[in-house]
Formats: sequence, structure tokens, C-alpha cells
Amino acid sequence: MMVYGALDIGGTKIAGALVDEEGGLLVRVERATPARRPAQELMDAVTAVLDELAAHPAWDALSCLGIACAGPLDTAAGTVSPVNIPAWRRYPLVERVRAHPRTPLGLRPVLVGDAVAMTAAEHWLGAARGVDNALCMVVSTGVGGGLVLGGRLHPGRSGNAGHIGHITVDLDGPLCACGAPGCVETLASGTAIAAHARAAGWTAPAGTTPDAAAVAAAAEAGDARAKAAYERAAQALAAAIAATTALVELDLVVIGGGVAQAGDTLFKPLRRRMTDYAVLDFTRDVPIVPARLALDAGLVGAAAAASAAVGAQAAQVVAPRP
Amino acid sequence: MMVYGALDIGGTKIAGALVDEEGGLLVRVERATPARRPAQELMDAVTAVLDELAAHPAWDALSCLGIACAGPLDTAAGTVSPVNIPAWRRYPLVERVRAHPRTPLGLRPVLVGDAVAMTAAEHWLGAARGVDNALCMVVSTGVGGGLVLGGRLHPGRSGNAGHIGHITVDLDGPLCACGAPGCVETLASGTAIAAHARAAGWTAPAGTTPDAAAVAAAAEAGDARAKAAYERAAQALAAAIAATTALVELDLVVIGGGVAQAGDTLFKPLRRRMTDYAVLDFTRDVPIVPARLALDAGLVGAAAAASAAVGAQAAQVVAPRP
Repeated sequence: MMVYGALDIGGTKIAGALVDEEGGLLVRVERATPARRPAQELMDAVTAVLDELAAHPAWDALSCLGIACAGPLDTAAGTVSPVNIPAWRRYPLVERVRAHPRTPLGLRPVLVGDAVAMTAAEHWLGAARGVDNALCMVVSTGVGGGLVLGGRLHPGRSGNAGHIGHITVDLDGPLCACGAPGCVETLASGTAIAAHARAAGWTAPAGTTPDAAAVAAAAEAGDARAKAAYERAAQALAAAIAATTALVELDLVVIGGGVAQAGDTLFKPLRRRMTDYAVLDFTRDVPIVPARLALDAGLVGAAAAASAAVGAQAAQVVAPRP
Repeated sequence: MMVYGALDIGGTKIAGALVDEEGGLLVRVERATPARRPAQELMDAVTAVLDELAAHPAWDALSCLGIACAGPLDTAAGTVSPVNIPAWRRYPLVERVRAHPRTPLGLRPVLVGDAVAMTAAEHWLGAARGVDNALCMVVSTGVGGGLVLGGRLHPGRSGNAGHIGHITVDLDGPLCACGAPGCVETLASGTAIAAHARAAGWTAPAGTTPDAAAVAAAAEAGDARAKAAYERAAQALAAAIAATTALVELDLVVIGGGVAQAGDTLFKPLRRRMTDYAVLDFTRDVPIVPARLALDAGLVGAAAAASAAVGAQAAQVVAPRP
């Protein structure tokens, strides 16, 4: 039996798991992320997760170790600079995990961005299983993504490929937090949807948070301002998905993340808008489906990416034909 | 010695060549394209080119046969529907070439789009030689492109990947001929540049054609309207190149085609605009350089793509390290 180690590091929690060849979690541990604390204290939490994993008997069969982390990151350098973990800037996470006393000698941890990990998970066990060319997106507070090309994960040289949240779809549009005009994220993230609805005069019911989920509830109840906010997001997503299809040719688009929970409120206008932007023979009619793996997609994806990257036998398992 | 056969079929000419392992043309033949004539008459011109190639002694060493053709096309189906050759719609070009009496038994011709062929040529022998991840663009009457990813040509499932001319960079922009709003081509092609300058009141000197080259000459002479037309094109190209970089991670961008002949008139505003749109660590500072192979890039690229696709030994040659 092969065992894949996995870490998933985000602004809220640091999770770890040992994953079997079918993607099952043999053990799962978690710590809260001390996101505002110094770099070493953050690393101590990672070490505690690794200690706990290493105490499990399956650790001895470890064939690879994947680390999913919030971006930006540089997989070539092995460093991470998560936006919401300020003390880590170009932090040498791969080297630190490799130096853990229980990390097997010679095992080089494989770092992937969180959206790329989600993509690897969907390709292994989720909606993109058996698909050769797929875009997987996370539409949430921000917008991220990852690509499968030619049957394999395409993380890019530095692990940031599939960065669909920061492509410009509105040349002279509003400046995104990243500094570029008219990015998808600034038009279609949950944050943008809520801001759009509020700017149009929508307010959340008393005592509730005025977020994208509340806007979705209002849209379902028929509120025109709430619907318009989702329509605008759908338009930006459609242009970006069509662009990605024209650039690399896709067989499937998978969308997960909090905003995708809005279901038809997002997917219906999105599929309609696709007909405006995906008009070429080879870009038309690419299916857009919801993600299947919500829970622990980061851990499962880190395991999948690591097993593929190290060329463990399990790499064969990563993209099984249906 | 390996010999690669190549055809390059466009709206103006049908060229053919036998290419050696270093990319040298052993023989080159050409016919005018009877672009407005019936399908069979067009095919007769292709057959005549093949006849002439087959009469050359090197034909007996033929290891593959590449066909570059104007798009759209479907390499999986082996069909072409060139915009400017109306009689060919889903025309089974691969099957017809395969059926030529002198085509060796068992040799399946490899179809590629013209921009993908240009990309293969630049990767083999031109500006993208030895580069693992490159976007090669043709900015001319239209805008096309092709991708090299992970050291290999990425033509996509149907051979249309790299279609950067028809990605939307202006969400609510003017409708492109393709039917989608705000495509790169409708903002940055030679046609668009000339139209933009004319709309601003620029006129070509008496007796000259009011095309992008004339606009470039005017821009060099200091005409503000002509400069603004190139500035607008540069902005659209920058947004599209930055988007491509964010999606797949690029090491290099190569630009050829008539509009690229404007040199600094295009490249200077383009490089400046890149700093607006390529703002992430991994998208910043990707070099943008002119194409090196103007002459016969289609033939050389068809040969390169075919040799790689059929897995001839020569595939090794396609992406030599510098």
C-alpha cells in the first residue's frame, strides 16, 4: 500500500492527512492557523500537525508529501507568501517541512497552490475525473483556478498557472487589489457580488451578514438588484472561461467555492452568458459543472499532486480513464 | 537523413516543401490559391504541389507530412474551413492529401493551424528556441497565436489552442466579426489599427493605402492620432498577453506578422502597457520579442509539428536546448 502525506495551509486552519491510494483519509489532524503571529510560531503549528501524522503507523509507508498552501507562492523556490499570513513572505516552507525530523530522508515535499490542489483533487476523484483538459475554479472571497492539460495537472513553472482570478476582462475597468484593471476577481468574487448588490441599494435582512450568500438568497426571492449582481459576475466569469477555452482548449469547466453554492443563481446566467463569449466552434458548449469535492479537497489534491510529481506508481491513479 | 514534407495553405498561395532535419528547404514549390473557385479546383492546386514535391528524389525519404492551413480547422476530424476560402467548409483535407497516389502508405498527414505552425517554427529554429513555455503571436490583418507548454507544442484537442485573437479583453466592447464582444482582434489587428486612426481623423498620404503600415509611418513622424491607434492596440495586446501568462505561465512572448514590422511603434507602448496588466510576481517581466522566421515559417512549422506529432526521431530536434 502506498501512503500519500498531505498538508493544507490556509489563513484559518492548518490541516494534515495521510491519504490512501483511493483518496481515503487514513488520519486527519488540524490546528488553527496563528495567522497574525510570527513566522516561527506558524511553523510550530505545522510541525505539530506533522508530529501527529508521523505518530500514525501508516507514516512508515509514506511515498510522497504534498503541501497545498494559499498563494502567492513559488514552487520552484519552495517558498510561500500567503496574502492572509503576513509573517510568511517568501517563507521557505518546503525546506522547513523537509527538515522535520520525521520526514523521510530523500523525500522532497511537493508544494502546490490551493486552487491547483483543488484541481488535482477534482481530477483524481471529482467532477473532472477522466477529463483530459479541464479548468477548475474556486469562486469564493477571491477567485482562483487550476488547469489540467493533456490529462495532467498543469501547475506551471512556479505553481501559479490557472490564475484566472487575475486576468483582465475589462480593459479600462476598476482596479483590482492586485493592481491591474478589470480583473475577474474584482468583478465576480463573493466580495464583488456583495459590493455590487449593496451599491445598487440592496441591504441584507436585519441581523444577517450582507455577503454573497445573502445576495443569493435575495436573488432567489426575486430581488432585481441581487440578480443583477450575479448577472454581472456571470458575465465576467463567462468572458474569462471563454478566453481560457480559446487559449488552451477545454473539455470541461468545474466551479467550486462558496459562491458556487448559489447553484442556479450563478450557473444559469453563467451558462447563458457563455453563449455571448464562447462563439467559436471549438469553444462552444463546453460543459460547466459544480465541483464535487468540497470537504478536504485541499488535502486530497495535495496528495494527488505530490504522487504525480514524484512519479510514484500512484501517478497512474491520478487520471484514470472513466 | 530524415525528410519532412510540408504544405502551407493560405488564401493567397499554396506552398509546399521538403525540409531537412536542420529546417533547411530542399525544394520549395508554390501555386496561387484559386480562393474563390470550387472545392475540387482548390484541391487540384494542392495535388499539383504534391506532384511536384513527389518528383524530387528526397521524397523517398519522407518520414512525415505536415499541413499548415488557415483556420478555423479541426485537426481531430482532419477538416478545414478557412475564412478566406469559402468553398472549403469542413473540407476533409487530411483525407484528400492522404489519398494522393504518391503519399506513402500508412503516413497520416498532420494538420496544424497557421499560427500554431508559426509557433512550431519559432520554437524549432526561431526566437522561442529552447524555451519551455512560450506564446507566439501573429499580429496582421487578424490576430492569431500558438502555445508551447512544458517544452512541447500545445495545439489543443482540435488544433485551435493559442487562439488569442478571439479572447475578450473588453467585456462590453465592440462586437468582433466572430460574434463576441471586445476581442483582441477587433482592437489590435492591423485592420483595427487603421480603422482607429481613420476614425480619429487621420488620412493616408495621397496615393498610398491607409493600412496599419501607413499608420505606423505616420506615428513615427509624430502624428498623435496614429500613435493613439498603436497605443490602443498595445493596451489590448498587453491585457491578453498578461492573461495568457496568468493562465499558463510563460517564459517568452514572440510576436510576428505585418503589424509587428512597426517595431518600436508597437513594441514600446506594448512593453509599457504590460506593466499595467502583468502585475503578479510570476507574470511580471516576461520578455516580448519579435519573431525571427518570417519567410516560410508556415512550411518550416508544418514540418516541425508533423515530425513531433508522428514521433519521428526528429521530434527530439524540435525543442533543442540552446
